[in-house]
Order: sequence, then C-alpha cells, then structure tokens
Amino acid sequence: MAIITLTTDFGEADHFVGVMKGVILGIAPRARIVDLTHPITPFEPREAAFVIAQAYRYFPRKTVHVVVVDPGVGSARRPILVEAGGQYFVGPDNGVLSLVYASGNPKVRRISNSKYFLQSVSQTFHGRDVFAPIAAHLARGVSPGLLGKPVEDYLRTQPEKPVRNGKRSWAGSVLKVDRFGNLITNFHIDEFDAVLDRPFLMLAGVRPVEKLATHYAEAEPGEPVLIVGSSGYFEVCVNQGSAAKLLGCVIGTPMELTIYWNA
Amino acid sequence: MAIITLTTDFGEADHFVGVMKGVILGIAPRARIVDLTHPITPFEPREAAFVIAQAYRYFPRKTVHVVVVDPGVGSARRPILVEAGGQYFVGPDNGVLSLVYASGNPKVRRISNSKYFLQSVSQTFHGRDVFAPIAAHLARGVSPGLLGKPVEDYLRTQPEKPVRNGKRSWAGSVLKVDRFGNLITNFHIDEFDAVLDRPFLMLAGVRPVEKLATHYAEAEPGEPVLIVGSSGYFEVCVNQGSAAKLLGCVIGTPMELTIYWNA
Amino acid sequence: MAIITLTTDFGEADHFVGVMKGVILGIAPRARIVDLTHPITPFEPREAAFVIAQAYRYFPRKTVHVVVVDPGVGSARRPILVEAGGQYFVGPDNGVLSLVYASGNPKVRRISNSKYFLQSVSQTFHGRDVFAPIAAHLARGVSPGLLGKPVEDYLRTQPEKPVRNGKRSWAGSVLKVDRFGNLITNFHIDEFDAVLDRPFLMLAGVRPVEKLATHYAEAEPGEPVLIVGSSGYFEVCVNQGSAAKLLGCVIGTPMELTIYWNA
Repeated sequence: MAIITLTTDFGEADHFVGVMKGVILGIAPRARIVDLTHPITPFEPREAAFVIAQAYRYFPRKTVHVVVVDPGVGSARRPILVEAGGQYFVGPDNGVLSLVYASGNPKVRRISNSKYFLQSVSQTFHGRDVFAPIAAHLARGVSPGLLGKPVEDYLRTQPEKPVRNGKRSWAGSVLKVDRFGNLITNFHIDEFDAVLDRPFLMLAGVRPVEKLATHYAEAEPGEPVLIVGSSGYFEVCVNQGSAAKLLGCVIGTPMELTIYWNA
Repeated sequence: MAIITLTTDFGEADHFVGVMKGVILGIAPRARIVDLTHPITPFEPREAAFVIAQAYRYFPRKTVHVVVVDPGVGSARRPILVEAGGQYFVGPDNGVLSLVYASGNPKVRRISNSKYFLQSVSQTFHGRDVFAPIAAHLARGVSPGLLGKPVEDYLRTQPEKPVRNGKRSWAGSVLKVDRFGNLITNFHIDEFDAVLDRPFLMLAGVRPVEKLATHYAEAEPGEPVLIVGSSGYFEVCVNQGSAAKLLGCVIGTPMELTIYWNA
Repeated sequence: MAIITLTTDFGEADHFVGVMKGVILGIAPRARIVDLTHPITPFEPREAAFVIAQAYRYFPRKTVHVVVVDPGVGSARRPILVEAGGQYFVGPDNGVLSLVYASGNPKVRRISNSKYFLQSVSQTFHGRDVFAPIAAHLARGVSPGLLGKPVEDYLRTQPEKPVRNGKRSWAGSVLKVDRFGNLITNFHIDEFDAVLDRPFLMLAGVRPVEKLATHYAEAEPGEPVLIVGSSGYFEVCVNQGSAAKLLGCVIGTPMELTIYWNA
C-alpha cells in the first residue's frame, strides 16, 4: 500500500488533479494518494522545491512524490526520476527537485520508457500522461531501472544561502511567506546558532527585529520577533498578526542579519 | 474497494464536504473517496458538467461520481442516477450530468427509494442526505435497479457548439478559463483539424491569434497562440502568462474562427 | 482502518497539512485521513469549534478528530484529548473543542505522555509534533489512558445563545456565513419552532426578513427568506444570491427576532 504524494501548481478549481488521481488509481488501485499542495504559484518551480524539501522527510520509505510545476511541458526539458533518502521523486528536470538532491547520493534517471506512460501522450499535460502513470507503476513495485537510464547532467539549482557582507553581518532573503504571514528566512539554525545567545539585529522591510522568542505567543501584540521555525529556518513572526504585512515583505525580500559577537 | 469522486460548489471552507465524507464512510467504510473539485462557481451546473466530462474517462469502471451543484435543492427537481461508460453518476437533474450522456446509451433513473437515504432528509442539503448515501450504497454493490425506475424525460442540455457564420468562419465561445488563464474554446480537434495545416485567424477579445503551437513554451513571451489542449479542445494560451488577462476574455466570451482553405 | 479527520487554519498552500499526513501514515499506515477544512480564519478557534461540531456526528464511532487552530502553540496552553459521543478529539485547550462537550459526559485528558510525540518537539508546530502522532496512535488502538490523565479544569466556552430582550423578541447573532452567503444564525429550531407557524420579523443588517421558506428555490429572486438550515439553525438566505451581501452582514452581526404570538 505505497503512498503517492502530489505537489502541483494546478490549483483546486480545475479537473487536472482529479484526473491524475483517476490515472493513478486505474494503475495502482491500492495506492494511498496524499495531496501536499496544489496552489503553488503558477510557473514557480522554486516554490514547489521548497514545499517538497520541507515535507518528504516525514513520509515513510518508498513513498513516491510527484512534483509537477512544469511551464516547459512538451519542450525538450526531460522528465526525471530521483531516488534519494529511500524515497522516489518524479517531475520535470527544471529545478523542482533540486533541494532533494542535498540528502546525499541521489540517483537521477531520465524517464524514457514510454511503455509506462498513458497510451497517447499530450504536449500540455504530462502530469496526467507521464508523471501520474510512472508514479503508479513505481508504487506497484516496478523497478526504477526499467523506467530510464541514469543521467548526470540534471539541473542543479541551489537555494540562495546568506552571503557574508561585513565583519559581523550577512545578506539573506525571505524564502517563503506562509499563510499566517510568517517570513521564513534562508538563515538556518545549523549555521546561525549564535543568534540564540548573542544580541542581533535583523533588518527586513520597514521594521528592525532585535528580539528572539521561543514561540509565537511569547511576543507582545504587534511586535515582530525572530523564532526558530519548525523547519530549522529562522522566521520573523508577529503574535496573531502578519509579519509580511507589518514589515512589508514578500518572497525574495532582502534581509540583513548582524550578530554582535563582542557586544 | 470502489472509488467515489466528489464534484461540488461547496468550496473548501465549510463543513459540507467533510460531512458528506463522514456519511459515505459510515455506510461504505472501504470506499476510496477522491475530490475532483469543490470550488465550482456557486449555482453554475454548466461548470460542473464540464469538469466531470473531462475527468471521468480516466477513472476505472464502476467508479461512482457524485456531482452536486444544486440551486434547486428541496424543490421538484429530481435526483438522478446515470449509468454510462461503465460508471455511475449521481446528482440533481439540472444539467450537471448532461455532458456524460454523450458517451452512448446512458441509462437514467430517478432516485426514489428513500430506504437508501439518511433517515431524516433536509430540504437544503441533499449532498449529505441523498447523494452521499446513494453513492456509498452503489459503492457497496447495491444494484441501481433498487434505487429507482428508469426515466426518459431527464434534462438534456447540450454544450453550445460553434456555428458556421460565413463561408470560412465559425462563431464559438470560451468554454472555460483554467487556473493558468488558458482559454479553453468550444472548437474541438475532431471537427476543426483543418486548423493544423491551414492559415487561420482566431478572434477573441482584444488580440487576434494566428499562430499554432504544439506546447506552451514554443510561444514567444507575451504572444498568444492556439494549442490543441489536453481535452482535445483548442486553447488560446500565452507562454507563462494569462491569455484571459492579455485578451480580456472570460467564460462565455464569443470567439470567431476563420480558416483560409484556399489561401 | 480507523478514520482521522483534520480541521486546521493551515490553509492549503503550505506544506503543513501534508507533513501532518506523512507523520500519521508513518505511524498508522492503514488510517483513513479525511480533510474537514483547512482554510479556517487564522487564530479563530470559534470558527473551528463550529465546523467540528457540525461535522462529527456524521462520522462512525472511534473516529479521531484533530482540530488545530492554535495561536498559543508552545506556550502554557495544554494539549487535550476528549472522548465524547463514542469518538476522539485532540487539539489545544483553547476552546476549539468546546462545542463537542455538549454531547454528554465528555472525558477530557491532558495529553502528556511524550513517548507518543515525535522525538523532537518544536515550539511552533504541535500539529506535526504532538497532535498528528497522538491521533495516529489512537487510530492504532492505543488506549487514551496511556496518553494522559483526566483533567476537570479545561476551558469551557459556550456559544452565545439568543437572549430575550422584550416580551416577544430575542437578540441573537450571525454564527457563520457559508460559501453561498447564507447567514447561519444562532436561533435553533429546537427553541424557536414557533417561527414555523407564527408571523415573525427577523431584523439583520439593512433588510427585514418576514417570510419563511422550506428550500432556497422557493424564494423570489432577490428576496431574503428564513430557512431551517441543515444543522437545525435558522438561516437567512437569498435564492441563488448572497444574503451576506444583500443585507450587509458578517459573522457576529447582531440580529433581532420578534415572534407575533397573538397576531
């Protein structure tokens, strides 16, 4: 009873996602289908790359993750299958799976065996015609080796990491704004644990942030604070409010972190 | 382990869809429930009719499709059960299932056996009280003949097909705008394959379309093109942009296609 | 094959809900997961309380309902497990489960046995780290007694009931506006059945309502009517239109009902 997760920019108002599920259940009637998210911003592979990177570790081994944000569908861009961390990932070779590569020794294959596609493949909906059936066959136990040959020249795009721009300061940015308006930054606790016990200044948008909190309700109403988020990235948050609105930030907004080592 | 799909205008912010799932699982604990889409425009049976017509072919035989866009709930409009293409469809007799009738020899029954409804039937929520339990009983193997008698006078509404309005031209319209802003027209490849190898002019909204592309990325940025969509209908698309915004079109906007046979 | 339902304010555009599902399936691979609703207004426990109270009765015994609207996550607010009506409910002790207590003899426990949490518990995402794993263990058959001890001092918040403010009149309010713009009031048929056979006047927003209808389509276009809704609460509705827009009402808008007993 393998699990198949779906992450797309198809939204929820059209028939696209439902059709993919029909195709999957026709091939693998016992597969468990889990929607990760479908309202990814259209044509934004980076947003999907972040979502799948945050989520996949919480799924059991052998889960098959389908990630389709695919503005290049029908063009020369390749469909790929990635084996990493004991799980499978299928999607276009346009960066949507690039954050998964970090988890050590990924094996990447170009999906080419049309025997496992739908009989007739359109030029505009590979989610239905290629990725859904490939995922279903993987869930049924078809060996990755039957689906295509390993490739080395797959697209590697790295998330932008903070860059040192002074003796005590780094330039970073907003990775994502979540539903609550929390600003998920690209400063990670693994590299910036000094923030936990040193004075600091985070400049983002129109308000400076100088206070660390352990949870949302610890902040005063209306006061922006820094929190170690559930993904390990520092987040700028406002208790029961939207940091994005208060500070005027969106995805990609530059941030600057200064840590006062000798303060 | 029969599949039950749900297509409604209930949206996703209320409890309506969840309640229908509870009712289904209470009757048919092993049914597989698949959401097709719930944000159908309220009171628009035609929109639901299009979605279910696009999706059902991709589901296995014996799938039960529940389609509830039902502004007349509680009035004299009848609940019906349609057998077509080896699958089942339940919903109100108001046109939501009308595109399914095309698939040859539909058998339509008026659902009348209240033994298979919830014990107490409200006048405002037949999705919960009639359609969900009927679908669950079908998924469990109850014979359609037990649910109601065949009727012939069900509502037949046909999608508007393009109409010839000149020697070389046809008047059609926008069937649907999808999430990406693609304009799905009512010109189908089966009737208008001449477009594939003749010069043509599609007038829709504020910009003429004269170029055919095989996939989205083949178009220049900002240039509207015609594509054979994944449903077989021609679509007006803009590479990584919204044709609906660029051309100023919505569902129902008239289009005119001219094919230059002797050009 | 226990059922686990999810009700949150996480929305559908982030990875939060998908991650909870991964955690659940890792612990209870055969659990059936049902989304009730995720676009609850952020930080509004009362809205979630209404949804779960409307929905849970339609689910089979032993269903586990997870309700996470949790602005106080990481603070002293307690995670609780409620047994009521033969079903289980888990969530923060902030009122989200308060309408469930009404169903007689609830047993409430403080969830404290960290053996059943994820190994590392964050301060910001107990949906993932506490509530999802607890629900999965319950679905697998772990006894509630192993998860924490009974408490008596849990938060009891009652929905505001209509208050008599005259010989023949009551002051109430709008409990919820549904997707169609129907105004679900806090006047319930059990207490106000006199409306069914007496003249009445409902004042809400800018238009008086004096007519009762049995179903939506019975009303004239544009005419607001009172209907006994599918939950037993009276609703102000407009046939194929939005009562919320027509009358200018939102959640919480005061209403006044007068019943003409001697008319």
